Amino acid sequence: MSGRYLEDFTVGQTFGSGRLRIDAERAKAFAAEFDPQPFHLDEEAAANTLFRGLAASGWYTAAVTMRLLVDSELKPAGGIVGAGFEELRWPRPVRPGDVLRVESEVLEVRPSRSRPEQGLIKVRTTALNQNGEAVQVFVGNLIVPSRTAGGA
Amino acid sequence: MSGRYLEDFTVGQTFGSGRLRIDAERAKAFAAEFDPQPFHLDEEAAANTLFRGLAASGWYTAAVTMRLLVDSELKPAGGIVGAGFEELRWPRPVRPGDVLRVESEVLEVRPSRSRPEQGLIKVRTTALNQNGEAVQVFVGNLIVPSRTAGGA
Repeated sequence: MSGRYLEDFTVGQTFGSGRLRIDAERAKAFAAEFDPQPFHLDEEAAANTLFRGLAASGWYTAAVTMRLLVDSELKPAGGIVGAGFEELRWPRPVRPGDVLRVESEVLEVRPSRSRPEQGLIKVRTTALNQNGEAVQVFVGNLIVPSRTAGGA
Repeated sequence: MSGRYLEDFTVGQTFGSGRLRIDAERAKAFAAEFDPQPFHLDEEAAANTLFRGLAASGWYTAAVTMRLLVDSELKPAGGIVGAGFEELRWPRPVRPGDVLRVESEVLEVRPSRSRPEQGLIKVRTTALNQNGEAVQVFVGNLIVPSRTAGGA
């Protein structure tokens, strides 16, 4: 796998992505399998809930965001391997027909003290809809190999 | 929707779930759609990665965990509606054949100052494999209606 090594990342770097449209039927099928609640399954039932209309499961939004991130310009060598998240939120609902993209920003770059062959980068990834409104924000740490690991 | 209101939750309550087995083909199909990286797609390619064998995408684990949670005894009135997470991590890989269950514990119960009809509960949800090892931990805040909202 090619891609960026720890030494190639710097604080403040940003990476964009392509776009994916949220399809109502796919979002409902995902919800039927993983998050079967009325506001994710059925337009009519959703109208009388907190969401006031059908909203994609947050976990569907997370999955779509991951797909955009994997295909984005971020491309750490060794792949996108999350060590954990410090924050994950959905500031507004995702609706069928929304077109999502992601923007990632590098917040920290930390070599590992105990394992010189790798380090962590802290990245804020924001998923935005077609109006430029944030629909998901997460701040996570990714494990990235060092160039000195011999991979390059 | 019936279920528990804010007044029905107390700090320290715990809730269990049923069990779901991780199927290799389903985990790979999920990865092909949302997280197409070698360590989630193909046993042979995965052997030479950080994961040393096929591992489910963390987002597949998150989705399966949500399904277990929706079907669990937690059952807030109005459904499981996440306001955001403070922590989400995957302490160890999920492998095909693993059998997952979740345990949730109520950490805080907070009425809303501005919206008396609802409040937040902070819940730690741990997904465990068949050996009782944690494979995912998240701490999140759920929006829960008050009984005084008139729903009961």
